[in-house]
Amino acid sequence: MIYLDNNATTICYPEVSEIIENYSLKNYGNPNALNSFGKEINNQISIARKSIANQMNCDKNEIFFTSCATESINWALRSSTYYKGKRNKVITSSIEHKAVLNTLKDLKQLSGIEIVEVNPEKNGIVDPEKIIREIDDRTFMVSLMAANNVTGNIQPYREIGDYLSKTDIFYHIDAVQTIGKLNFSLDNIKTNFASFSGHKFHGPKGIGILYIKNGTKVRPIITGGGQERGFRSGTQNVAGIIATSVALKISNEKLHDNMIEMKKLREIIVQRSKKLRGIINTDLDNSIVNTLNVSFPGLKGQVLVNALSADDVQTGISSACSSRTDGGQYVLEKAGIRKEIASCSIRISLSSFNSEDEILEFVNKLEKMVNLLKI
Amino acid sequence: MIYLDNNATTICYPEVSEIIENYSLKNYGNPNALNSFGKEINNQISIARKSIANQMNCDKNEIFFTSCATESINWALRSSTYYKGKRNKVITSSIEHKAVLNTLKDLKQLSGIEIVEVNPEKNGIVDPEKIIREIDDRTFMVSLMAANNVTGNIQPYREIGDYLSKTDIFYHIDAVQTIGKLNFSLDNIKTNFASFSGHKFHGPKGIGILYIKNGTKVRPIITGGGQERGFRSGTQNVAGIIATSVALKISNEKLHDNMIEMKKLREIIVQRSKKLRGIINTDLDNSIVNTLNVSFPGLKGQVLVNALSADDVQTGISSACSSRTDGGQYVLEKAGIRKEIASCSIRISLSSFNSEDEILEFVNKLEKMVNLLKI
Repeated sequence: MIYLDNNATTICYPEVSEIIENYSLKNYGNPNALNSFGKEINNQISIARKSIANQMNCDKNEIFFTSCATESINWALRSSTYYKGKRNKVITSSIEHKAVLNTLKDLKQLSGIEIVEVNPEKNGIVDPEKIIREIDDRTFMVSLMAANNVTGNIQPYREIGDYLSKTDIFYHIDAVQTIGKLNFSLDNIKTNFASFSGHKFHGPKGIGILYIKNGTKVRPIITGGGQERGFRSGTQNVAGIIATSVALKISNEKLHDNMIEMKKLREIIVQRSKKLRGIINTDLDNSIVNTLNVSFPGLKGQVLVNALSADDVQTGISSACSSRTDGGQYVLEKAGIRKEIASCSIRISLSSFNSEDEILEFVNKLEKMVNLLKI
Repeated sequence: MIYLDNNATTICYPEVSEIIENYSLKNYGNPNALNSFGKEINNQISIARKSIANQMNCDKNEIFFTSCATESINWALRSSTYYKGKRNKVITSSIEHKAVLNTLKDLKQLSGIEIVEVNPEKNGIVDPEKIIREIDDRTFMVSLMAANNVTGNIQPYREIGDYLSKTDIFYHIDAVQTIGKLNFSLDNIKTNFASFSGHKFHGPKGIGILYIKNGTKVRPIITGGGQERGFRSGTQNVAGIIATSVALKISNEKLHDNMIEMKKLREIIVQRSKKLRGIINTDLDNSIVNTLNVSFPGLKGQVLVNALSADDVQTGISSACSSRTDGGQYVLEKAGIRKEIASCSIRISLSSFNSEDEILEFVNKLEKMVNLLKI
């Protein structure tokens, strides 16, 4: 199988799998137990938290473990809405992941917040000035993704952070698509919250991280035994936490080389796609280097994804999380891409596990399929 | 190591660990992806859901996956409070897990609900009549645990279910301590909600189940991509879900034999404890058979737990999730056990992994420690 759907999820590193086995069969104690077995496990979680903080250049007390990025996002948005005071306006982009867009909709229903969704420009990137222009004294929160999951386009999360740092407006960055693809370091990014997901960088599913800047007002959404210093109750997913800390470390260690390699492999796909008259929807100069969104007009994205699957190549039509609805085509349409073109898009997303041989085999299969299926 | 803290967490079955490895390194696809790899994973989740429903004798559409029992509990209680209408009263017991007690406190702060906590009788078991007497036309929810985590005492969750089935009051059962220890089957229990945790029955940490009876009004607490039929967003913890379905199956298959064996082993500890003038806090005739709570007056529980740990035996002072606060002694004190006795309690909780040899070794170590340390 050639797996090219790494923005949806990734294979675990072998090291990750070994850690999970260890914490399932050997070091399986409850980190909250007051026996020595539990205390040692608790110590292991502290080490993992510190390692993650070191990797991300933040304080260990700013790292909180959740069950997934969606939970992290819910936590940041729901907590900030709780502390909105008399202000009522949230600004986001119209191309956010559904975890942001649907949670804001839910908060609109619950709390009557006003949501402003800023559209991206034609290149698929939101103009920071258009967000800044919307910020006023009624605004209590801005939520923006670092890199778009469907196109890979990098959004102006830094510029918005710089602007908001002079205000008391909550700022949340959906940073799910950054790790292993982009140099994302919290010491030079100004934000209250940043969300991450272990399984997007070769960690296990079932673990999310929420970075919460020290001093940020925050309210738990899951209460109980008081784990995570009282902010996220529930027995910690020990294996997942420790495995994720290792996945992050490996991803960061290899980041520079992997980025060069993935960019090179993406370029092979770009060139072949152009030869096949594909329309490149990704801004190649301003995107995470693993992602290519391309439309072959006249050939529906889902048809091509199915055909490639049958030929043992796994790609995506867009966001896996939106696949039940419109398959994330909204991201393209919001940038002004016509429905006919958007519906003919596929998303190819690489990881460091992809070899050049695989990509050369893939482009041949792609060419065969496009020629076979195109109307 | 002799591990006797199985109410806190359990070792994974070897089969569970194998499944996790498989879904981490081989079948790692995203179940929401529309390629063939993702569709197959989605199919595997459906099979796991159906297997769990079969084990529990309910409909597969009544099984929802969460990240832990604490999340399941939060979901049930928060959703029911959202739909409370003009009613405002919740009835629970004073010996619930902190996941219930603290979430209700949080809901009191958020929504002004009134909480009635019914105390247990001297045997540590809540009198169902005392709960029923509290139920009135202002009551919108009752939450009761099936078996207490600290003492093992089985609570009147069936009787309350029978009574409430004639009403439109939401009913939630915290069933975390049932699987593998008690014949718990949803076809003869009347409830809207029941919460479970994979890692309490040799599944992995990071997976909870919420049973939601068909027809129950329910609102998501984590929104986004619309996974779990729109009720719990976030990429599913595939490995955890499938591993938990297998852990449940194994636990149920061996339930009868394991219960007989654990009861026999517990009796060995009971007899030796009595010889050491221990006070048995567990109602041995009305408790899950793996649990023994015993006080050795004059010897603080934490001291004994530490000493046993140093001798490679892991026990608990009570609930791991409450260990930061009073260690779950509140459960004993609410039953009228004096503070001096409650603070001298330890919790010994067995699993099917414990052998008779281990228990014979343990009681010798216990005797040594009690004689050594008792004032």
